[in-house]
Amino acid sequence: MKRSELTEKILDYKRDNDLSWKEIADGIGGYTQLFIMTALLGNMKLPKPQAAKAAKLFGLSKSEEKLLNEVPMRCEGAQTPPTDPTLYRFYEAMLVFGPTMKEFIHEEFGDGIMSAIDFDLEVERQPDPKGDRVRVVMSGKFLPYKYHGAQEGQMAYGLKEE
Amino acid sequence: MKRSELTEKILDYKRDNDLSWKEIADGIGGYTQLFIMTALLGNMKLPKPQAAKAAKLFGLSKSEEKLLNEVPMRCEGAQTPPTDPTLYRFYEAMLVFGPTMKEFIHEEFGDGIMSAIDFDLEVERQPDPKGDRVRVVMSGKFLPYKYHGAQEGQMAYGLKEE
Amino acid sequence: MKRSELTEKILDYKRDNDLSWKEIADGIGGYTQLFIMTALLGNMKLPKPQAAKAAKLFGLSKSEEKLLNEVPMRCEGAQTPPTDPTLYRFYEAMLVFGPTMKEFIHEEFGDGIMSAIDFDLEVERQPDPKGDRVRVVMSGKFLPYKYHGAQEGQMAYGLKEE
Amino acid sequence: MKRSELTEKILDYKRDNDLSWKEIADGIGGYTQLFIMTALLGNMKLPKPQAAKAAKLFGLSKSEEKLLNEVPMRCEGAQTPPTDPTLYRFYEAMLVFGPTMKEFIHEEFGDGIMSAIDFDLEVERQPDPKGDRVRVVMSGKFLPYKYHGAQEGQMAYGLKEE
Amino acid sequence: MKRSELTEKILDYKRDNDLSWKEIADGIGGYTQLFIMTALLGNMKLPKPQAAKAAKLFGLSKSEEKLLNEVPMRCEGAQTPPTDPTLYRFYEAMLVFGPTMKEFIHEEFGDGIMSAIDFDLEVERQPDPKGDRVRVVMSGKFLPYKYHGAQEGQMAYGLKEE
Amino acid sequence: MKRSELTEKILDYKRDNDLSWKEIADGIGGYTQLFIMTALLGNMKLPKPQAAKAAKLFGLSKSEEKLLNEVPMRCEGAQTPPTDPTLYRFYEAMLVFGPTMKEFIHEEFGDGIMSAIDFDLEVERQPDPKGDRVRVVMSGKFLPYKYHGAQEGQMAYGLKEE
Amino acid sequence: MKRSELTEKILDYKRDNDLSWKEIADGIGGYTQLFIMTALLGNMKLPKPQAAKAAKLFGLSKSEEKLLNEVPMRCEGAQTPPTDPTLYRFYEAMLVFGPTMKEFIHEEFGDGIMSAIDFDLEVERQPDPKGDRVRVVMSGKFLPYKYHGAQEGQMAYGLKEE
Amino acid sequence: MKRSELTEKILDYKRDNDLSWKEIADGIGGYTQLFIMTALLGNMKLPKPQAAKAAKLFGLSKSEEKLLNEVPMRCEGAQTPPTDPTLYRFYEAMLVFGPTMKEFIHEEFGDGIMSAIDFDLEVERQPDPKGDRVRVVMSGKFLPYKYHGAQEGQMAYGLKEE
Amino acid sequence: MKRSELTEKILDYKRDNDLSWKEIADGIGGYTQLFIMTALLGNMKLPKPQAAKAAKLFGLSKSEEKLLNEVPMRCEGAQTPPTDPTLYRFYEAMLVFGPTMKEFIHEEFGDGIMSAIDFDLEVERQPDPKGDRVRVVMSGKFLPYKYHGAQEGQMAYGLKEE
Amino acid sequence: MKRSELTEKILDYKRDNDLSWKEIADGIGGYTQLFIMTALLGNMKLPKPQAAKAAKLFGLSKSEEKLLNEVPMRCEGAQTPPTDPTLYRFYEAMLVFGPTMKEFIHEEFGDGIMSAIDFDLEVERQPDPKGDRVRVVMSGKFLPYKYHGAQEGQMAYGLKEE
Repeated sequence: MKRSELTEKILDYKRDNDLSWKEIADGIGGYTQLFIMTALLGNMKLPKPQAAKAAKLFGLSKSEEKLLNEVPMRCEGAQTPPTDPTLYRFYEAMLVFGPTMKEFIHEEFGDGIMSAIDFDLEVERQPDPKGDRVRVVMSGKFLPYKYHGAQEGQMAYGLKEE
Repeated sequence: MKRSELTEKILDYKRDNDLSWKEIADGIGGYTQLFIMTALLGNMKLPKPQAAKAAKLFGLSKSEEKLLNEVPMRCEGAQTPPTDPTLYRFYEAMLVFGPTMKEFIHEEFGDGIMSAIDFDLEVERQPDPKGDRVRVVMSGKFLPYKYHGAQEGQMAYGLKEE
Repeated sequence: MKRSELTEKILDYKRDNDLSWKEIADGIGGYTQLFIMTALLGNMKLPKPQAAKAAKLFGLSKSEEKLLNEVPMRCEGAQTPPTDPTLYRFYEAMLVFGPTMKEFIHEEFGDGIMSAIDFDLEVERQPDPKGDRVRVVMSGKFLPYKYHGAQEGQMAYGLKEE
Repeated sequence: MKRSELTEKILDYKRDNDLSWKEIADGIGGYTQLFIMTALLGNMKLPKPQAAKAAKLFGLSKSEEKLLNEVPMRCEGAQTPPTDPTLYRFYEAMLVFGPTMKEFIHEEFGDGIMSAIDFDLEVERQPDPKGDRVRVVMSGKFLPYKYHGAQEGQMAYGLKEE
Repeated sequence: MKRSELTEKILDYKRDNDLSWKEIADGIGGYTQLFIMTALLGNMKLPKPQAAKAAKLFGLSKSEEKLLNEVPMRCEGAQTPPTDPTLYRFYEAMLVFGPTMKEFIHEEFGDGIMSAIDFDLEVERQPDPKGDRVRVVMSGKFLPYKYHGAQEGQMAYGLKEE
Repeated sequence: MKRSELTEKILDYKRDNDLSWKEIADGIGGYTQLFIMTALLGNMKLPKPQAAKAAKLFGLSKSEEKLLNEVPMRCEGAQTPPTDPTLYRFYEAMLVFGPTMKEFIHEEFGDGIMSAIDFDLEVERQPDPKGDRVRVVMSGKFLPYKYHGAQEGQMAYGLKEE
Repeated sequence: MKRSELTEKILDYKRDNDLSWKEIADGIGGYTQLFIMTALLGNMKLPKPQAAKAAKLFGLSKSEEKLLNEVPMRCEGAQTPPTDPTLYRFYEAMLVFGPTMKEFIHEEFGDGIMSAIDFDLEVERQPDPKGDRVRVVMSGKFLPYKYHGAQEGQMAYGLKEE
Repeated sequence: MKRSELTEKILDYKRDNDLSWKEIADGIGGYTQLFIMTALLGNMKLPKPQAAKAAKLFGLSKSEEKLLNEVPMRCEGAQTPPTDPTLYRFYEAMLVFGPTMKEFIHEEFGDGIMSAIDFDLEVERQPDPKGDRVRVVMSGKFLPYKYHGAQEGQMAYGLKEE
Repeated sequence: MKRSELTEKILDYKRDNDLSWKEIADGIGGYTQLFIMTALLGNMKLPKPQAAKAAKLFGLSKSEEKLLNEVPMRCEGAQTPPTDPTLYRFYEAMLVFGPTMKEFIHEEFGDGIMSAIDFDLEVERQPDPKGDRVRVVMSGKFLPYKYHGAQEGQMAYGLKEE
Repeated sequence: MKRSELTEKILDYKRDNDLSWKEIADGIGGYTQLFIMTALLGNMKLPKPQAAKAAKLFGLSKSEEKLLNEVPMRCEGAQTPPTDPTLYRFYEAMLVFGPTMKEFIHEEFGDGIMSAIDFDLEVERQPDPKGDRVRVVMSGKFLPYKYHGAQEGQMAYGLKEE
C-alpha cells in the first residue's frame, strides 16, 4: 500500500463523517494540529500512540496503522511550481523575499541556513480591522556551515567573524 | 540599464565600503530593513525619497536613481528549485508544509489564499539555549475567492459557511 | 475519491443525458454559469445549497456531494504550456500582452497586481458582421504591494506617488 | 542589433526623460496606447509613420527606426511560468478558468478558438468603492476549426450543429 | 470515460477486424480520410452523422458515440519533443525551416500567421523514380495581426505597407 | 565568430539597405529563395559560389564568407515550444495532425519516416476569395526502417507486406 | 491494448519459462537477435511470419499477435536523460563524442546525417585480456541534405564540394 | 563583480603559474585543501585571514579579497543533471543508493536527515592492487525532525521509538 | 509484473511482520545489508541463492523470485531533484562539493572518474558527543579516460603526466 | 579564459587557414584524429606534447596551450535533446535501441555497463553501392556491478551466474 492511497482513504473518512481537522487533532492528541495534519496528509511520521488513535478514529487496519508510523517519502508527486493558488502564494513569497532572507541570515548569524528539520510552524488567524490575516511563524534552528579542518583559534563554523 | 546590473553595482559598493545592511537601511530610512534590502536586491521599488537617499549613499547617477524607483520585473532569472542551500530550505518548508497550510487556511477562513502582496515579513534572531533560531513571521491578508454571480443571501466570497 | 474522478463522472452524466452547461447552471442556480462550470470542472468549491442541487441533478452520493463542496487542489495535472489550441490562445495572449499590461497597471495604479482571487470573469458572444467574436472580461481588484515599515506620511502601499 | 537591445534603449530614454506611456502614446499617435506599448516593448511591429515618430521622440538612428518597423520574434526569452507576480496572476487566471472558457466557447460557438491574432485588448481602471479594479477586456474573433472534405450539406467548419 | 480510452478501444477493434483507415473512412464518409483519422485518434470532433456511423462500425455504446461528437481536449499527454522518429521528423522540419517560413510570410503577407484552425491538410504518396516521397500539403488562411486603434487611413491589420 | 553573430550582421545589413529576401535570393541565385533564406538565417550551409556572392552583397570578410559555407550547428538556441505565434502554429499543426500523418504513412508505405533531409519545401501565397492562404508543401523521401538480418525472401525494410 | 502491456506480458512469460533472448530469437527466426529483441521490447514492428511464431512461443491471442505486427509509437514514456546507468553510458558517449562525429561526417561526406532508419546495429562481446569489451557497431546510410532548387551543374545535395 | 568571474580569474592565475591545488591550499592554510578549493571554486566563503592570503597569492584587489570572504549564492548556474561524466557519477550513486541510505538512516536513527551543513568531506586515493580507488568520506550530523507540540514523555524529535 | 510492484509487496510484508532491514539482511545473508536493501528496493539484482531466501522470507511466488534475480531498469520514476529532504541532502552535497571533487580527482589521478559501478558503500552511525553523525563511505575505482590511438611512449589513459 | 572561447578561437583559425581536421590531426599527431578533434572541440584534455604542437599550429598563447592540457568540464552547455539533426540521429538511435542493448549486455555479460570512459571510437566511410554509409564502432570495457560484501564462493561482481 502506498502512503498516498492511505491519505486519500483518510480524507474520504474525514469528509464522510464531517470531521474537522481540529476535531481530528483533538482526538489524536499529543502534538500540534499542524503536525498531525502534516502526518495524515503524508509528509510526516505519526508516532506509535498517535497512529493507534488515528487507526481507531478512521477505522484503519493494523497494516495501515503501521504505515502511518513510517517515515514517508516526503512530497512525492508534488508539482513545482505548484498550480494551486493557495500553495503558489507561499512559493511566490519565497521567490520574492528569499534572497533578502539569505542576506539577512548571513549578516546576523554568519554562513549557514535556517533548518527546515529542527523547525517549528505556527499558522493562525490574526484579527485585523482591515481584514483578518493569515499569520505564519516559522522558526528553524540556525545551522552554521562547518568549515573543514579549522585549527585552534580559527573559525570552525560559518559564524560571524569579529 | 538592467535592474540586475544596478543590483550588482550596489553590492560592489557595499562590499568596497564595508557597509552592513543595517547601516544601509539606517541611512536610507523610512521602511524596514528587509523592505529596503529587497528593493536594493531588485525585487521591490524604492519610493522616491528613499531612492534619492540611496543614490547619495551609493553614488548613483540620476538615471540609476530613477531605475531604483521603478517597479521591477521581479525575480528575473531566479532558478527554481533554488540551488543555494539557504534558499532551498525555505522552498523545502513550503513543499513539506504547504498542503497543511492550505488545509488549515480553508478550515479556518474558507476558500481563499494568504496574500503575498498585502504581506508583511519579519526575520529575527530568536535566542535559544540549544542554539539560536531564525524566526520568520509572515503575515498576509486572507483574500477570499470571489464566487461570481452570488445573489442576496448567498455566499459571495469563499468564506466559511455557517 | 479524487476530485478528478468526480469531474469525469459529472461529464459522463452530462453527455449521456444531453445536458448543456446552460441547463446545468439553471438547474443549480445561485451563481453565474461560468462559476458553476468551473466548480464542476474541479477548480472551484460549490457552496452547500448548490452542491445539494448538483447531487440531485447528477445522481451523486452523499460523499460526492460533500467533495463538490470542498476547496479543491486547483489545476492539478494541468499541462503547461497547454497543448489544446483553444487553451493555448489564452496563454499566448498573456505571453504577448502580459508585459504591456504589467506596465499599464504600474503606471495607472502603482506597484501591485490585478487580483486573480477577487476576480470576476465574463465570457460572451459578441456579434460582429465580420464574424462573431469571443469577448472575455476579467475584472480583478487592484492589490497594491505593501511596503513594510512605512511611517506616517510615507507610502505604505505601492500606490502612485504624487 | 537585437530588438531586446532596442527595447532597453527605449526604456532608458523613457526613464531619463520622465516620459509616461501615455505621453509616449500621444506623441506617436494613430493606435491605442496598449498597442504602442506592446510594440515598444518588442512584441509588435510599429507601422512606418509611427516608427518615424518614435525615432524622433527617442532619438533613434535610421537603423533602429527600421527595426521598430519589423515584425519581431515575439516573446523571445519569456520565462514560463512567469516569476513576476503581476504577470503570474494573468497566467493563473488562465490556469483556473481556461478549461471553463474552452467549454463555454464550444457550447456557444462550436469547435474552434478565440483568435489571439484578430484580437483586441483594453485595460482600464474600474472605479469601485471597495477598491478600484483592473478591468481587462479581450475580444478575439471566433475561428471555427475547418473540417476537411465536407461536402454539400455537411458541416464544413466546427460550428454548432442544429 | 476518457477520450483516450475510446481511442484505444477503436484501435483494438480496427486491429481485430483487419480494418484499414481507408476502409474506415469510406465506411464513415463525408469527410477526408485524414480528418476522420484525426477524430478517431482523439484530436477532432466527429460530426453527428459520422459519429453515428462510427458507432455502428465499431460497435460503440450510445455514450461513446456522443463522446466522439464532443470537442476533445486536444493532444492531451503528447510528449514534446516527440520520441517517435516518424513524428520527430515533422517536428525537426519545423525547427530547421520555421524561422524561414516566418520571414517569408511576413515579407509576402505582412504581420500575421498561417492559421492552424482554418487549415487544410493533404498527405499523399508522390511517385519518384529515386524512391517515392511523402507529400504533405498544408494550407492555412493567412491571419493578419490586428493593430488596435487604427484610424481611417491607417493600417488596421498587419498587412504589407505600400 | 559564431554563426548567430553572422546572421545578426546580415539582418542588420538587409534592414539598413532595404533589401527584400526576394532581392537577396535573386542576387545570390542558384537555389530557391527559401533555401537561401534558411542558409542566411543560420540553418543551412551556403555552397561556395553562393557564399561568394553573399559576401559581396553584404560586404562580408573572407572569414565570414567561409563561415557561411560551413555546415552549421542547426537550430542552436531554439526555444521549444516556440513562443512566437507564427512559429507556434506550425508546431501546433504537428501536435494535432502528427499522429494522423504517422498512421497514414504506415498504412500507405509501411514502417518508416518522411525524410527531413531529402526534403523539399515550398511556401507560397494561395489566392482565395475568402482570404488568401499560406500554402506549404513539404515533400520528403519515404525512408523505410531497415529490418536487421532479413534473409532472402524476407522483408528487409519496413515496407508494406502483401 | 497498449504495446507496453504486451511487452510486459512477454517479459513475464520469458521469465517464468527461463527463456533467453537467444532462444527466443532462434525460435522466431528470420532476423537478427537484436532486431527481434527490439520488436518484443516495443520499439519495432515484427513482420507477420515472425509475429505468428512469437504468438505461438508466448501463447499470445490473435489480437496480441496483430499488435506485434503494428508499427509502434516508439520509445513512449522513455525518460531522458535515462536514469538507468547502462542506458546512460550510451547517452553520455553521444554527449561527449557527438560534436566530434558531426564534424567528421561533414568533412568526410559533406552536409548530411547518418540515417537512424536505414541503420544496422551489432552488439557483441569483444574478448580482451584486460577485460572483455562490449563492441557496438552502428552503420547508417549517409543522407545528404537536399539543397532546394539546384540547377544543372550545381550542388543539389549537401555533398563535398570539389 | 560576480563570484563566477572571480573564480575564472583565480583559475587563470593558477594555470598561468603552474600552481597545484595542494600548493594553493598550503599557501593559504588553516583549513583542509578541499575546503579551500570549494571556496576558490565559488561555493564557500573564505574566512578573512585566508582571503587575505589568497589575495596575496593570486594578486587580487582589495575588492576581490572581500568578495572571497562573502557567503556566495552557491551552485549558481549548475546544470542538473550534470553533463560532465566525473560529476555525473556522484549524481548517479545518489540516484541508485539514495533510497537505501534513506531507509538505513530511518532505521538506525529515526526520522531525520544527514546534515549537508554540519558536514565533513574527505577525498583520498585508496591504493588497491586491482587499481587505486577514489575514497570519499562524508560525515554529516544526524538531524532529527522536530515533532511540533510534543508534551512531556512524548517524542519531541523523530528519534527511534523504543 | 513490474519491479516496482514487487518492491511495494515486499515493503508491505516487512511492515506487517515488523521486520527490520537488519533482520531481513541477516535472513538473506551473503551480502552487506545495504546491498540487500538496494536490491529489495529495486535498484540491484539479487543473486539466485539470495533471491530464493528472500522468496521464502517474504512468501513470494516463483515468478517473483525470478524477477528479484533480474537486472532492473534502475531508478525508474525517480524525481530529480528529489523532493524528499533526506534524499535531497545527498543531492545537495554533490551540488556544492561536486566541482571540488572533480578538481581533486584530476589533480591526484589525472583525467577520469570515480566508478559508480565498481563501487562500495558503507553507511554507519558515528558516535559524537555533539550529536551522532551519519558516516557515508563511498569507494569507487578510479577509471582513467582512454586516449584513443596512443602510441608507444605516449599517454594511453588520462593518468597524470610526469 | 573559458574552454569554449578557446574552442571558438581554434575553429576561427581552422576556417581562416583552410585547415581540414585531417591536416590538423596529422600536424598534432600521436593520437587518433577523432581524439584530437574531441579535445580541440573542448571535450577532452590534450596531452602536453600535443598541446604544444597545437599551440604552434594555431598560434596560441602559453596560457591557452595550458588550458588545452586541462581536463575540461565536459559538454558544458549541451542542449538535450540536441536540436541539430546530425546530432539528433545518434540520440535517436540510443532511444530506440538502448533498451535492447541493455538486455543484450545483461544476458551476455551479466549485471553491469559498457564503459564510456575506457572506450574507443571509430568512425569511417563504409562504401556501399546503394549509397555509402557512416560506420561507427564503439568499444567499451564491460564493467560488472560490484556486489558489496560477497563472501568466498559468492558472486562478488554482477557477472553471469552459472
